[in-house]
This record gives sequence, C-alpha cells and structure tokens, in this order.
Amino acid sequence: MGKESGGSSPSKPNRRRGKGKPSNRGKELKWIPLGGMGEIGKNISALQYGDEMIVIDCGLKFPEEDMLGIDLLIPDVSFLEQNRGKIRGIFITHGHEDHIGGLPYVLPKLDVPVYATRLTIGLIKNKLAEVCPRYKPVFHEIGAGDTVDLGSFSVRAIAVCHSIPDALAYGIRTPAGVVLHTGDFKLDAQPIDGRTTDYGAFAELGREGVLLMLSDSTNVEREGFTQSERTVGRTFEQLFRLHKDKRIVIATFASNLHRAQQVFNIAMRYNRKVALVGRSMIAYVDLARKLGYVSAPDDLFIPAQEADGMQPNRVVVLTTGSQGEPFSGLVLMSKGEHRQIKLGNRDLVVISATPIPGNEKLVSRTINMLFSCGCEVVYERDQAIHVSGHASREELKMMISLVNPRCFVPVHGEYRHQVRHAQLARDLGVPAKGVFVMSNGDVLSLSQGGKGSVEGRVQAGTIMVDGLAVGEFQGSLLKERRELAQDGILTIAVALGPDGSVRGVDMDSRGFLHRQDAKDLYGELERAVVKALEAPMGDDAMRTAIRKSAREVLSRYTKGYPAIVPLLVRQG
Amino acid sequence: MGKESGGSSPSKPNRRRGKGKPSNRGKELKWIPLGGMGEIGKNISALQYGDEMIVIDCGLKFPEEDMLGIDLLIPDVSFLEQNRGKIRGIFITHGHEDHIGGLPYVLPKLDVPVYATRLTIGLIKNKLAEVCPRYKPVFHEIGAGDTVDLGSFSVRAIAVCHSIPDALAYGIRTPAGVVLHTGDFKLDAQPIDGRTTDYGAFAELGREGVLLMLSDSTNVEREGFTQSERTVGRTFEQLFRLHKDKRIVIATFASNLHRAQQVFNIAMRYNRKVALVGRSMIAYVDLARKLGYVSAPDDLFIPAQEADGMQPNRVVVLTTGSQGEPFSGLVLMSKGEHRQIKLGNRDLVVISATPIPGNEKLVSRTINMLFSCGCEVVYERDQAIHVSGHASREELKMMISLVNPRCFVPVHGEYRHQVRHAQLARDLGVPAKGVFVMSNGDVLSLSQGGKGSVEGRVQAGTIMVDGLAVGEFQGSLLKERRELAQDGILTIAVALGPDGSVRGVDMDSRGFLHRQDAKDLYGELERAVVKALEAPMGDDAMRTAIRKSAREVLSRYTKGYPAIVPLLVRQG
Repeated sequence: MGKESGGSSPSKPNRRRGKGKPSNRGKELKWIPLGGMGEIGKNISALQYGDEMIVIDCGLKFPEEDMLGIDLLIPDVSFLEQNRGKIRGIFITHGHEDHIGGLPYVLPKLDVPVYATRLTIGLIKNKLAEVCPRYKPVFHEIGAGDTVDLGSFSVRAIAVCHSIPDALAYGIRTPAGVVLHTGDFKLDAQPIDGRTTDYGAFAELGREGVLLMLSDSTNVEREGFTQSERTVGRTFEQLFRLHKDKRIVIATFASNLHRAQQVFNIAMRYNRKVALVGRSMIAYVDLARKLGYVSAPDDLFIPAQEADGMQPNRVVVLTTGSQGEPFSGLVLMSKGEHRQIKLGNRDLVVISATPIPGNEKLVSRTINMLFSCGCEVVYERDQAIHVSGHASREELKMMISLVNPRCFVPVHGEYRHQVRHAQLARDLGVPAKGVFVMSNGDVLSLSQGGKGSVEGRVQAGTIMVDGLAVGEFQGSLLKERRELAQDGILTIAVALGPDGSVRGVDMDSRGFLHRQDAKDLYGELERAVVKALEAPMGDDAMRTAIRKSAREVLSRYTKGYPAIVPLLVRQG
Repeated sequence: MGKESGGSSPSKPNRRRGKGKPSNRGKELKWIPLGGMGEIGKNISALQYGDEMIVIDCGLKFPEEDMLGIDLLIPDVSFLEQNRGKIRGIFITHGHEDHIGGLPYVLPKLDVPVYATRLTIGLIKNKLAEVCPRYKPVFHEIGAGDTVDLGSFSVRAIAVCHSIPDALAYGIRTPAGVVLHTGDFKLDAQPIDGRTTDYGAFAELGREGVLLMLSDSTNVEREGFTQSERTVGRTFEQLFRLHKDKRIVIATFASNLHRAQQVFNIAMRYNRKVALVGRSMIAYVDLARKLGYVSAPDDLFIPAQEADGMQPNRVVVLTTGSQGEPFSGLVLMSKGEHRQIKLGNRDLVVISATPIPGNEKLVSRTINMLFSCGCEVVYERDQAIHVSGHASREELKMMISLVNPRCFVPVHGEYRHQVRHAQLARDLGVPAKGVFVMSNGDVLSLSQGGKGSVEGRVQAGTIMVDGLAVGEFQGSLLKERRELAQDGILTIAVALGPDGSVRGVDMDSRGFLHRQDAKDLYGELERAVVKALEAPMGDDAMRTAIRKSAREVLSRYTKGYPAIVPLLVRQG
C-alpha cells in the first residue's frame, strides 16, 4: 500500500491493519510516523536504523467540537515506550503547539534528551513548568548549521523560515542514506530576522543524493508563493498612517514574534506605546525579549491598565484572540468584559490572522461584537493583514526540485493534502513507486538501493486528555457525554426492602424536563415504575423493567429521549 | 436609536431595552422585524398601519453547535399572536428554509392567509405536511407583476433572481408611503429561467418615491458583482467534456433548481442518465417538475440502485451533501455507507457549493473521505463551480440608486453586514438620519413626511425546537446539557429509614469515570457520604452534605468535575 490508491484516511484506521508485521531484516532504515499523517496536528515520527532511533517533534492537537470536555489530544507513543532503550534523542523543528505540545505528557515517559534551538527550548520549558513542574529533562541547544552525531545518525540542523522564529529542517545522514525532514517552512526571501531558508544546504543535500524527503503539505492547495511576513508590516504601516487619531488594537498569534517585532518597530516610528494583552502574548514576548529574538526598549511598553487612560493615538494594543478563543484578550474586549481595556469608536481593531478551520464561527461572532462596540474592524482576507507560515505550491515544487529525493512522503497535512502533494512530487519526477501517502503507525522501510516500501504497522493513535489523568479517559465516556448532551438524563432511584419490595422512589433529571415543569409526567412515571416492580425479580430484570416502563410513559408525553438511569438502593 | 453608533448586537439584546415603549400616535406606519436582524436566518417582519398588519416571511434558523440537542430555531411571534386580529396576511418572498421554515410552527397559531408564488406554496405545503399534516391554511397564489390590495396595503409582487426559482420582492403602497422589501436577490443578467430581476419595477417605485427600503445584506462584504448562475453551467460543461470516461457526481443544494436544470441539460447533451440521491433532492426535483419549473424527460432519470451497474460515462449522480451534512447522500457515499452508490477511482465528484459558515469542518472531512475513496474531487472556490444567490456590493449599490429611498434598513445579515450595508446607503446619499441598523423587536415608526425613528420595542426572540413540544424547552436545560457534556454526571442515591437514618447508598455515573474503573474512588465516596449524613438534618441539608463530601473525595482523585446529583429515597 502507500500510494494513495491504497491509502487510508484518518477515519478508516483499520482499513489496512494486519497486512503483515513490521519486517525485521536487521540493519534497515525505517521511518515511522506516529502523528501528523492525515491530520494537521500532533506531529511526531521516529527514524530507526538497526537498534538506534531518533524522534522528530512531539506535538498536540486540539479536539474536534464533538469531543465533549476533552482539553487536548496527544499521540499514542506506546511504540516509543516499548523501544525506549533505543531512542537517542528527540529533535524538535520549532516551537508551535503541534510540534512541542505533546512533550509534557510524553517526555517524562521516555526521558531522553531533547535537541532544539534556544527559543524552542525556552517554549518547551514553559510548557513543562505548567504541566509537570518537577520533571527536568536534558536539553541540548542547537542552531542552524550545527551537526549532531548520535550513533548511526548525523543530524544537521538547517535554517527555515516559518511563522515562529528559529525554525529548523533536519538533514539526517544514516548508513542507508540521507533523510530530509523540512519541518514547517516557507521561502520568505526577506524574513524579518534576516534568517532566510538555507537553500544552499538543501541544494547540497540534493547533490549528495537524498534517499527520503518528508515535506510540509499544509498549503499544497494554494497556488503560487506565500507572501513575505514583511507585507503584513507594510499593511500595518499604512493603517498607522491612515488612522493617526485612533487607538490601534492588533490581534494575532502570540507565537508569531516576527509580527510582534514589526508592531513594535512601527509603534516606535509613530510614537505609540504598546500594551500587551493576553497571558500567552505576554509570555511569548517576555521570553523572546529575554532570549534576544525580539528587540524593543522597556519604555516602549505600558501596563494594560494604563492604555485606556492615554491618548488613543499614543497607544497600540497587541493582543491574543485572533481565532475568537472564548477567554482571549480580544474576545473579552469585544464583550466589554475585559478588566483593563474598553473598546469604543476611537478604536481600530485589526484581526491579523485567518480563521483556522473550525474557528470560522468564533471569529465571525467576535467581529460582530467588535462592530457592536462601535470599533472600526479590519479583517478581510484581501487586505494583506496576514500571511501564512507555510509554503504554497510553487515553493513546494522548488523544494522538491532542489532536493530531488528518491523517495517522498508528504507530511503535516490532511489526507487530501497528502494526496495532492504526492501528485506534485510525481509530476516533478519523483518515481511513482517512491511516493507514499502514509497513515499514522505505518512503517516505511528503505533499502540502501533506495527502494522503499510500507511493510507493516506499529501501534499509533490518539490519546484524549481531559480533567481526568491522561489516558484514563475512554472513548465510551465520550459516547455517553454525547447522549447526555443530546437529550439529557433521567435518574430513577428505588429503595428496596430486605425482601426486595419497593419501599420508595425518587427521580431527578438534568438537561430534560424538570419535575416542577411536568408534575403529571413524573407522577405517572413513579406509578409505572412501582407497578413494573410488583413481581419479585433479580436486579438486572428490575433495571430493565424500570427503563422499559419509564420509556413507555415518556413516549406518550414527549419526543425527548433522555438516558434513563435506574438506581437500586438496598437496605444495608 | 438605530444608527450603528447606538446599535446593539444579537448578543447584547438588553442594551437598549426600556428606551421608551412603542408609541401609539394612531395612524402611523410601523415596520417591526421579529427575526433576521443581526442574523442570517428566521426572517420575519411585520408592517403595521393603524389597525392593519401584514407579515413578510416566516423562516427558521439552524442551531449553533453549542445548542445541544436542539433541532431548529424559530422566531418568538408573541407580538403577532397578540395582534392576530390585525393581520391581513403573510407574504412570502421565496421558498428557502430561512423564509418559510417557521410557518409550520407559527401559521397554525395565527391562522391567516398566505400569499406566495406557486413553487413557494408547493414547498410550504410539503413542510406543513411533515410537521402539522392536519392543518390546512388558506393560500393565495401570486406571480411577479400581480398586485394584492388588502385594506390600507397594496402589495405588488416584483420578480427578483435568487438561488431558488420564482423569488419575489414586494413593493407595498400604504397611505404613509411606499415600503420596498427586496427579499433575497441578485442581478443575474442571464438567469437560467430567463426571469430577470425586474429593474423597471424598482425604477418606477424609485421615481414615485420610496419611504422605506429593506434590502438583503448577505454579501455586502463581497466586492463587485455576483456571477451568473450560468457560469456554473459552463464549468459543468467543461468538466463533462474533460472527463468523458468518468462517472460524474455533483453535490449541491437541493433547492437550487436552476443548477439542477443545468445538470439535466448537460446530461442530455452528453448522453448521460441522471440518478437523484438524497431525500430532499428527490422531493425538490419532483415538485419542480410537477409544477413546471424544471423541464426534463422522464427517461432522463434512473433509480439510484441502477447507477453502479451502468457504464460510468453514461451516468450523472445529482446528490445532497454539499455542506457535509452527516446523513446526506454525498457523506454516506464518502464513507462507503450508501446503500446504492459506491464511489471509487472511476468517479469525479464536484462539490458545487461553498461551506456555509460553521460547516467548514464537515465539508473538509467529506473531501478527505472522498479522496480516500480514490475519487477525483473538484471543490475549490477558484474553480467557478458555485455562485452565490445574493447580490454583491456593486449590485447592492445599483439597487439603492434605483430605489433612492428616504429611509433605509439593512436586513438579512449579521450585525457587521448591517453596519456595512448602512454605510453603503449613506455613501450613496441616503440621509444618515434615515438609515437604521435595527435589532429584532425594534419598532421603526415612519411619518408621512418621511421621518423615521426607532421608538420602542416589542417582544422578540428565539424559540428552540427540540424533541420536546415547541416552546416547552428552556434555556436552563441547555445549560445543564452543556455541563453534562463537559464533565458528565455522578448520581448518589441514598435510602433513608423512617427515622431519617441512612439505610443504603447506590451510585451511578455517565460520561465520568465508571465504578468498575475506579473502585477505590467509589468505595471512598460511599463511606464519605454515609459519614456526612450521620447527624440528623433536613433534606436540603442532606443534599448539600452529600454534594460537599463527594466533591471533597473527587478532588483528591481527579481533576474531573461532574455534576453531582443526590437522590433521597424515603420509605413509602
């Protein structure tokens, strides 16, 4: 399998199960994705040569709207736990949640060293401090151009541009050949920090010969080139020039520190102070300034509570909430619920982002609320207030041509992105039998000769994290929550005497007609239950009788179909 | 109020409450929206002159994702019920759900005659047959150009183009002046049925002088002109030409009968049979053919079960599911769960629609599933496979210029659409004090002189319809459902002896850790509850004690926060 013909989609995980086990022909190179295939999120994969393994990234994913009460999703790494002894280290490409967010849950189990750039390490440390403050892993700071030799692997860190600073691709030399993982990238010719994607390094590897290329598929559906982050700065500049009288509120991703830097630069030129709003915005900027990724004088910043007191045209508010996140700075402001900042007709609000799929309604609601505050709002796609951090088709083509690999696997994409990126690679001359659309848990085996084949599967999947301890949470509970959410619940408790006779009944409902609103219904329910239990019977029979009789009564009163929970309380 | 400065958003309904009551200066013209302000959905408004009233449209709206278990939303029409005697009739602009969907719930209460075009009446009858088959209202069929005189109102039906045939605007003469309601419209110069928007009628009213204009705001954010429905036909034609070998599956809105007609025409040209899939697709096409809105020979159609048996290039499947609706034809096919049609690499699937806000993820999932079936899929915005049924900015400008009203109210839009449409009207010379951004329930009073003012409010709002009888359902239950959905529920039933002493305890959980998975926790819960109830106390005190002691135990075992429901069962 592997070619999309036989490919399987995230929602058909079993389609290719049991088609052979991972083969074991000794010293063979294997690449094993445990997340990030057929999904944009929880990126993680392992590269194995003989008894040695390295892991690349360890991300999280945010739950679908029907995953009620779930906070986040992390990859199932039992395969890595089983091979703990083999793992030499985890290499992180950059500091976005979908690449580092799984670490606080996974790293303590594996306890292997982490290799990443300074900023990425700083962000990982912040996350660990939140979730498992006591755990202190070993970090090795690396920078673009560095090479790390770990047993059979020689890992070269390569600079790439992305929507967060200090992002890396990895060129990994192994005895079987070179593996290139692009990480998330774009080819921004004039990045804000001057750190361009290192074409040279990619070309060099290309000349040397790359056995396997793993490339970012996020924007394969977008024609042309992704615009430079600089274009956003130009738009901001115009807005500052046009709205000299107004206070300017800019909402964007806290992790997009290049954009923050541009806001700071422009603010200084226009003699405005900057108020940072939103926990993560403050945290990212603090860290980035401490580590030297963002340069701005201390006196540029004012505390949020001072912003309302100042002349509108002397202030810029930089806030979170560009995705309409319920408790983010911008959303609280839009509802008039923000403690420090009240919006009004003196404000120009710029939403410097496009909605991530699934957030469209949240963003749309926020925009409506902002208008209702009397603000002017800039939010349209066509106004160049946001650019993506991912390469578009022309850039993806360029990268494939530079690297010219023997085998190609589209990563970091939903199924349709994988399929179209695979097609792109074939169009550019990568041999069809070397192009693989993979699913999480597939094992890609590569021979020295450059032949690749997906030969088996290892355990892979999603672990839901909610209030309960990680892992404890089962899907069955989700199903119950969905039922409760649909129709509510009706609990019927029956007290039984030692002889098993009914001594009393009490009922309660949640999310379903309450007793005080439907006295007749509840009266009849009680009578029906008592009647149903007249004859002596076992506990299970009783529960069934209670459900059956109650359902029968309900059906006559309403179309509602609540979960019915019978409780039998025996005399102790 | 009314100008957006003082405007209120859907989520701030109370903001202007109590600013004066509806004034009662005898024979005054009033326009009162009860739905469709600050929302795209459940359109309904009333026009009142003295003791006479007419109603325009009566739509429904689909629930937000957090309205758990709710099927649909309808407008609160208590104001109309109170004024039942005054209502001369309901005029419907066209047959879309957001304009007729409320009728089965509202019409029986008002029991007034309905005026609409033939197709619209047919669609209304189908809806009534589903919900209240016994109720038979009085229908008056009207057509474009007809004028209906009802007391002080003389209502002229005006042809407009939209994404469903036989749509109308209404020009309503009253003693106080002319009111123009555009309905949903676009200015398609070459509509499929040749029935163009009747510019002449609008111009004529404009010359005569229009007191109040109510205009469709849906696409006010879109620059330029909305493309003709014909462009979609051209794209289809190309796809048929390019994919002579494939079976073609087209998913679109069942109500877009012009599109269906184009599919039928092209299918005939390319000698393909048509299989209709999806309950509503079949119902709409049947009705439209019966009433003569769609022309296609009987032998063009084949039953869905024959489609898989035929040569792929001899078949077109026209199906529902363009919005990824869970049980629609396309989604069942994409999951391989459709009884009659199996998709594969011989299929070209065209999704002839753009996702309605909120449906993006459903559509995206469907596309991934289709790719995983091996289909070729055409879905991109830039491929001219769909056009909107609503006028874009240039068309809206043209309409305002034609009509040149004294007062203007943007209708059929979210708050930001209203604000921007209002701005557009002012830019085109409508006096600022005559432009109103209204909320549902606002009362706009108009004097002969052409002065307008929003002077009060009547009751308006949303009624949730779920399995329970309409109206019965309270928001408080929704809140409970959300809590249940978040953390699940833990029920603790205690049997009490006549002396109030605890005789037994039983517990059950849904959507939260089950007993068999957490024996210690449940054991400790039971002990804690028994202990908490040792001292004699009243029922409320007992319930509190149970909650308190259980919460305390839970907090030590998990971060989960289920609803805790204590039940006290007394000996009868």
